[in-house]
Amino acid sequence: MFDTKVYKNRRQKLATAVKKGLMLFLGNDESPMNATANTYRYRQDSTFRYLFGINSPGFAAVIDIDNGKEYIFANDFEIDDIIWMGTQPKVKDIAAQVGVNETMPLKKLDSFLSQNIDREIHYLPPYRANNILRISNLLGIKYTYVQSKASEKLIKALVDMRSKKEAIEIEEIRKACNIAYDMHTTAMRMCHPGVSEREIAGAIEGVALSQGAGISFPIILSQNGQTLHNHSHDGILTKGRLMLTDCGAEGLTGYASDCTRTSPVGGEFTTKQKEIYSIVLKVNNTIKDLARPGETYKKLHLIACKIMAEGLKDLGIMKGDVENAVKVGAHALFMPHGLGHMMGMDVHDMEDYGEDYVGYNDKVKRSEQFGLAYLRLGRKLEEDFVITNEPGIYFIPDLINLWKSENKFTDFINYDKLNDYLDFGGVRLEDDLLITKKGCEILGDKRIPITIDEVQDCIKSGR
Amino acid sequence: MFDTKVYKNRRQKLATAVKKGLMLFLGNDESPMNATANTYRYRQDSTFRYLFGINSPGFAAVIDIDNGKEYIFANDFEIDDIIWMGTQPKVKDIAAQVGVNETMPLKKLDSFLSQNIDREIHYLPPYRANNILRISNLLGIKYTYVQSKASEKLIKALVDMRSKKEAIEIEEIRKACNIAYDMHTTAMRMCHPGVSEREIAGAIEGVALSQGAGISFPIILSQNGQTLHNHSHDGILTKGRLMLTDCGAEGLTGYASDCTRTSPVGGEFTTKQKEIYSIVLKVNNTIKDLARPGETYKKLHLIACKIMAEGLKDLGIMKGDVENAVKVGAHALFMPHGLGHMMGMDVHDMEDYGEDYVGYNDKVKRSEQFGLAYLRLGRKLEEDFVITNEPGIYFIPDLINLWKSENKFTDFINYDKLNDYLDFGGVRLEDDLLITKKGCEILGDKRIPITIDEVQDCIKSGR
Repeated sequence: MFDTKVYKNRRQKLATAVKKGLMLFLGNDESPMNATANTYRYRQDSTFRYLFGINSPGFAAVIDIDNGKEYIFANDFEIDDIIWMGTQPKVKDIAAQVGVNETMPLKKLDSFLSQNIDREIHYLPPYRANNILRISNLLGIKYTYVQSKASEKLIKALVDMRSKKEAIEIEEIRKACNIAYDMHTTAMRMCHPGVSEREIAGAIEGVALSQGAGISFPIILSQNGQTLHNHSHDGILTKGRLMLTDCGAEGLTGYASDCTRTSPVGGEFTTKQKEIYSIVLKVNNTIKDLARPGETYKKLHLIACKIMAEGLKDLGIMKGDVENAVKVGAHALFMPHGLGHMMGMDVHDMEDYGEDYVGYNDKVKRSEQFGLAYLRLGRKLEEDFVITNEPGIYFIPDLINLWKSENKFTDFINYDKLNDYLDFGGVRLEDDLLITKKGCEILGDKRIPITIDEVQDCIKSGR
Repeated sequence: MFDTKVYKNRRQKLATAVKKGLMLFLGNDESPMNATANTYRYRQDSTFRYLFGINSPGFAAVIDIDNGKEYIFANDFEIDDIIWMGTQPKVKDIAAQVGVNETMPLKKLDSFLSQNIDREIHYLPPYRANNILRISNLLGIKYTYVQSKASEKLIKALVDMRSKKEAIEIEEIRKACNIAYDMHTTAMRMCHPGVSEREIAGAIEGVALSQGAGISFPIILSQNGQTLHNHSHDGILTKGRLMLTDCGAEGLTGYASDCTRTSPVGGEFTTKQKEIYSIVLKVNNTIKDLARPGETYKKLHLIACKIMAEGLKDLGIMKGDVENAVKVGAHALFMPHGLGHMMGMDVHDMEDYGEDYVGYNDKVKRSEQFGLAYLRLGRKLEEDFVITNEPGIYFIPDLINLWKSENKFTDFINYDKLNDYLDFGGVRLEDDLLITKKGCEILGDKRIPITIDEVQDCIKSGR
């Protein structure tokens, strides 16, 4: 937990931006796995933790902007809670720690809101079904309308605040990136023939749990890197293949990291792998050199696509005019996803508010073109944004076969050449960037091994 | 996944027991962590997996008992799903693998049920809010009534079936117990001064993920073993204290283990620790010798309490007539929980149906006495039950102070003596037992180190 004044300042700033009415915040409760009492790891709602610092289930809060009052609703522990879950400070002491003076038992929330039901009550779109039901009951809104009646004003004010990271937040993200360093180098050292994907994925999730709160998103670790969000870990590593590892940690204060590396099983890239890898690395480094305040990320995404298409043209995989190929989206066969996204307390920061509020605005709209449509962040970069830079090249047999059968973009794609790449998999290289005054820096004390030599050496050190 | 006939037989048996109507089964969907698309590890509903073998989100099923028909509802993957999540067999092929012939897209479930709404539709009590909402919508039941309108007939039939484990299930539980062996011995080897609880808990969750699907319940690993379900891992191990580790794995086919050991930090028990530890070990071994078909577990629980109370009397912590002390529940100050529970696909097997359906029946009712009320399994043991045997002794300062202030059971408890134990923590020793024809066996290829010497040696081997 940070200093009391951190949370007070944030709430003050938010109230000023939203101007009037009440703001209702529901913390997350435990999330049932296979029974009500057998739950997943507890994960507080990011906004609740950002504004109130509290990382426990059973809390709700209200900010009454018009009357300048703040309330925390929660129940004190009773003896049975203590026996099973240990002691917890009194709610009023927890609230005081984050600068809130008024507290009430949780069951009072309902009547408190009833008394204020004719006022403007701002809330965020809930993403867990139990909070959808709670909002529906508390505010008398049909549950199917709960999402759409969320407060755009509140969302926009929070996006403004949370997009620009405070110095203390950047430090916490840096720590999460350092854990990601250990996760990735552990994975590389284990990247040898005969080892199972599961063994490695388990080991690196163990690293995240040993040093922080756990993983910031389900680990992607697979020889089938062409599946963008591959959560299967059923494979056994075999020589000649690539292991794509996309993982990150959630630090103890709730901040994320999100990095990707691609490693040749056994420690030696083949020539073909080197060729593709070198293109992706070039894109990653070029974007790192270009990212700075004032650049729109959509523009950088398109620059990335062009460098990629040029590289693929040099290898005879693409052909024709690169500019035009990217314009029509032919390159998206090889990189159907976006260059990156915001990162902070959430790996896709503030994704629960709605992706377009975070990544787009009146000036930069989301494209509907295949590939570009998946770009989560399009708008202009500003100082203290934290974003991911994650170009990739993939050979997705189903997609290749579909496009080929449709004779799609035959001016730009050499389908014949692609027959040699159907078992290639994919390469993605992802760093977390802090946008600085004049450029950007890669977060983390050391950059995770990324050059061909660094990656090969790291893998071989695990023999 | 097991053989097709395993699932067909189970469904056949279930239909025969329930006799008439429709049975509706909703599989689990992904569970959102901090946004709809950033989810926890996928965990299928145990009943769905037991009857249909399918371990993926997005599935529902109906068994029409009256017409002898079975239906699976799910959507085939489209190209976007394949790009992001990989290929998946067609729904009709997945269904055929588990012996179901009729399949429909998920959106047809609503109209299918509408057409049958005047028939008896059995369903299980949902434990995730999204499935409560789904049942509410599908069957037109107000969501607050969804739990109470669940089918007792269906619950009872499933409890009958799932309580007695099939040979293939016992093998899978054995595998999960073997993973627990590795988790526990890893924890013991790390149990040295200066190591953090988090580091060890992370490492052993890594073991569970490397060898299976992960943990079967949130790991309890703490020097504050007196907190029964302690999920905080904030402590640093210090010499002279005990580390209580209660953990288990979920194997790849979805079966659980659940074992507890208590280890002296650094590898040497103090005399005081040995005294308490020896009582708990004696209880554990005695119950292991007594557990057999025909014994009620409530009786064994009370025998356990008596041995414990005798041991505590020998140490001067308890006093007076042991028989009476246990009768009134004075011993529950030191063991406020039950001796054990059913285990299978769920760590507390079938807990989602309602604990009393699983652990009690017309002949053995749950007590309301403090301590005994927490016993999850009271009824008569039968061959092929899998249960836990988990006696413990705890010194819970808040509970001791409360009872002392109330002058509670002063005939049986030496409160003065307890001043020496306020920083003791707790000892619990838990094995998983298979009830056999004439007795029981501890599941797992090797028993996790449990004697004082075994535990000390294992810890020291990690130096």
